[in-house]
Amino acid sequence: MRGAGPGSPAALHQMNQAHVLGAVRRADLLRLGEIAELTGLSRPTVVAALDELCEAGWVCYADDGPPGRQRVGRPARVVRFRSEAGFVVGIDVGAHTTEVVIANLDGAPVATAHQSTAEAHDRTQLLSVIRATVHDALARSQISRSSVMSVAVGSPGIVNLDERTVVHAPSLPGWASINLAKELRSSFRAPVLVENDVNLAVLAECWRGAASPTKNVVFVLWGERVGAGIFIEGRLHRGHGGAAGELGYLSVLEPDGEAAADHDGLGPFERAVGSRAIVAMARAEASRRPTRTSRLAVTSPELDALEVFRAADAGDRAARRVVDAVIARFARGLAPLLLLLDPDMVVIGGRLAGAGDAMFDALRAGVHRLCLVNTQIERSLLGEDAVAIGAVRLALSDVEERLLPRVESTGPPRWAPTVEHRAEARA
Amino acid sequence: MRGAGPGSPAALHQMNQAHVLGAVRRADLLRLGEIAELTGLSRPTVVAALDELCEAGWVCYADDGPPGRQRVGRPARVVRFRSEAGFVVGIDVGAHTTEVVIANLDGAPVATAHQSTAEAHDRTQLLSVIRATVHDALARSQISRSSVMSVAVGSPGIVNLDERTVVHAPSLPGWASINLAKELRSSFRAPVLVENDVNLAVLAECWRGAASPTKNVVFVLWGERVGAGIFIEGRLHRGHGGAAGELGYLSVLEPDGEAAADHDGLGPFERAVGSRAIVAMARAEASRRPTRTSRLAVTSPELDALEVFRAADAGDRAARRVVDAVIARFARGLAPLLLLLDPDMVVIGGRLAGAGDAMFDALRAGVHRLCLVNTQIERSLLGEDAVAIGAVRLALSDVEERLLPRVESTGPPRWAPTVEHRAEARA
Repeated sequence: MRGAGPGSPAALHQMNQAHVLGAVRRADLLRLGEIAELTGLSRPTVVAALDELCEAGWVCYADDGPPGRQRVGRPARVVRFRSEAGFVVGIDVGAHTTEVVIANLDGAPVATAHQSTAEAHDRTQLLSVIRATVHDALARSQISRSSVMSVAVGSPGIVNLDERTVVHAPSLPGWASINLAKELRSSFRAPVLVENDVNLAVLAECWRGAASPTKNVVFVLWGERVGAGIFIEGRLHRGHGGAAGELGYLSVLEPDGEAAADHDGLGPFERAVGSRAIVAMARAEASRRPTRTSRLAVTSPELDALEVFRAADAGDRAARRVVDAVIARFARGLAPLLLLLDPDMVVIGGRLAGAGDAMFDALRAGVHRLCLVNTQIERSLLGEDAVAIGAVRLALSDVEERLLPRVESTGPPRWAPTVEHRAEARA
Repeated sequence: MRGAGPGSPAALHQMNQAHVLGAVRRADLLRLGEIAELTGLSRPTVVAALDELCEAGWVCYADDGPPGRQRVGRPARVVRFRSEAGFVVGIDVGAHTTEVVIANLDGAPVATAHQSTAEAHDRTQLLSVIRATVHDALARSQISRSSVMSVAVGSPGIVNLDERTVVHAPSLPGWASINLAKELRSSFRAPVLVENDVNLAVLAECWRGAASPTKNVVFVLWGERVGAGIFIEGRLHRGHGGAAGELGYLSVLEPDGEAAADHDGLGPFERAVGSRAIVAMARAEASRRPTRTSRLAVTSPELDALEVFRAADAGDRAARRVVDAVIARFARGLAPLLLLLDPDMVVIGGRLAGAGDAMFDALRAGVHRLCLVNTQIERSLLGEDAVAIGAVRLALSDVEERLLPRVESTGPPRWAPTVEHRAEARA
C-alpha cells in the first residue's frame, strides 16, 4: 500500500494519464505543447501518457485513421479525444412513454427511439417495452451492444441505490421493489445505473438546459405527477433514503395538513395541482355555471390540462378562474422549496411547463409574494427529453469515473466497461 | 507556476507536512513509526516535516518543554499536537444574550462569558456588549488577544458572505446592513468570520451534538424565532444569497399563503408557532373559558411558552388544546423540510426544545403522518450553547484551512494568523 500512497510513482503515473486525458477531452483538438501547459507536465511525460491512451483507443492523433497497435512513422502533434470510442444509453421509463437516447462519449445523441407504455399493465410487459425500444434505437444507429459502455435508466419513484431497487413508484403498475439494474443487466455487457427520473431531469437542465452551468438548482416536474430534483453545489441531493424532492406529497389544501398517503398513486400536492386535478377543476367550474359559454370542451374525455391554460390565455373566464386557483396552489408548494433551499434557479418542466408566458409571470408573482428573495424561475429548455438526456449524463459520468481513475486506486486504469461489480455497487 | 504543479517537489513538501500535521492532530500521541504508517511517508521525510512543525510551534515531542529553537540531544519519539498553540473565539449575538466561548485548537472550551443584550437598543450599544463580553472571557482565561487565531460570530438574519454584512435581521435593532467583520476587526489581530446563527447551530450539533457525526442534518431553531440550518453532505448549505433555511417565513395558516413580509420582526411561521404566538394562544384560550380553572398564570406578563407545555404535561386542558394546535402547525412546517430534503436527522433546538418527551412524541407522529419516510427527530444536545459552539467550530475550520495549506498554493505554509485578506475574502 505504501508504494501507492500519495506522491508514489504509480499514483503519479495514473494521475498524469488522467490529467492528459481530461485535458484532451475538454478541448476539441490540442497540440502536445498545449497539453503540457494545461497539465503542468513535462513534454516527455505527456508523450508517454498519450502513447498509452492511443493504444487503449481513447485518443488519436488528428491525422490518424482508426487507432491500431502499430503506427508507422512519427505521428502528427495534434490530438483529439475519440468520442466514438464508445457509446452510452439513456432510458426514460414513464407511465405513458419509454424514450431511449444513444449518445457518443461527448454526449452527442446518435439515435433516439420512443414507444408507448400505456398498454403495459405489469412489470413484464413494461420490461419488454424497454428492451424493444433499446433494440430499436441500437438498430437505427447501427451501434453494437458491445460498444455500449454504460446504461442509465430514469424511473418514477424512490430509488434505493444500496439495494438497487425502485422502492415506491405508484404511477407504474408492478414497479415497486423492482431491481431494474438486475433485470436489464442481461441485455448489456455494460453497467446499468438506475436513478429517479426527476433527479435525472435536474442533471440534464444543469448540463445542457435552462440551468447550465448553475450549481444550485431545483427542477420541478409539473404534469400528472409533481416532483422536484435538487442539485446542490453541482451534486444531486438524493436524501437519506433517496426520498428527497418528494414535492408531490406536500399538503397545501387541508388546514391540518393532509396525510401523505397515496390516492390513485398520487400524493396530496399532485391531487391539488397535477393535470388530473386541473381537468377535474375545469369540469367542476363549467358544470357550476352551465349557462355560460366556455371555450373548454369540458365534456371531452380527452380534455388536456394544457388546454385549460390556453383557454384562459384566450380570455375564457371559467378557465381563468381555474388557472388562477391552480397557480396560487402551485406557488404555495414552491414557496417552501425557495425559503428552505434558496437555490440559484428553479426550472419548471413537465407537460404543464408548456403553458404560456402569462402563466410563468403569474407563478413568479405568486411565489415571490411568499418568499424573501426573488429567485429566478425559468421554463425547462429540454422539455420531454430532459429525463433521457439526464440518463445520458449519468451514464457518461459513470464512464468518466472509470476512464479517469482516482489517484487512490492502486491497479492500472480499467478502460473496458466490464467492471460489473462497480455497477452493482452504484446501481 | 509549473514548478509548483501537481507532483512538483515544492507541492510534495507542503503536502507531506500537511499530512504529518493532520495525522498528529487527529491522534493524541503518535510515534514516528505510526506517523510514517498513517501517512505513507518515509521516516526521514516524517522527521524533516516534524522538525519544521516543532519549530513553528504546532507540535512537540511529548517530553519536551515549551518549544524552542534549540533543543539539546536527540528528542523523544512521541509527538503530540500543541492544542495550546493558539485559541479561537466563538460569539453568539442574540436579542436577549451575547455568549462568548474561548476554545483551544482541539476545540475544548477554556472560558465562557455571557451578557444581556436586552438593554442594547442600537448597534453601538450591541457592539459594546459584544466587546465587553469578549474582554470578560479573555480576562477569565488569562489568554492574550495576540494568541487568538480566529474569531467567528453568529448573528440572527441573512448574512451576505461576499459583502460581509448582516442583510436582514429584524430581531436585532439597527443590525441590518452591519458589516460585523469590519466592526470587530479592530478588537483582534485575527480574522473575524460572520455566519447566520442557526447555520452555526447545525454545525455544532453535527460536530459535538445530537447529530454527530451525521452528514445530512437539518437543525430547527424553535423559540421566539424559528429557523433552519441545513447541513448537506457534511457541508453547510447557505443558498444563493445566504437565505436558505428561512423556515420562519413559511406560511401554514392562510389558505392562500401569507405574504412573507415581517410583522414585529417575525415571519408567518414564527407568528404561528413561535413563543410569542404560544403565549398569545394560551391567553386567548384562557379568556375564552374564564370559568375553568387553569394552572397557567395567563395574566402574568412574564408567562413563558415553555410553561404552557409543562402545564399541558401536568394535565391542564386549556394548555393541552394550545399545545395540540401548536404541534399540528409545527408539524406542517417541518413536513416540507422532510419531503424536500429527506435528511438523515432533524434536530430541534432553541428554547422550546426544552419541552418534555411527550411533545417530541406528538411532534414525530404529526410530522410522520405528513411524510413518506419516518425521519429521525431528536432534541438538541447543546441547548442554548449550540450557536457559540458552532462559532468555535467555524473559527477552528478557518485556522485549519490556513494550518493545513492546500497543495495548489505555491509559497511556504503561513502559520501566523495575520492573513487578513483571507478573512476579508471569507467573512
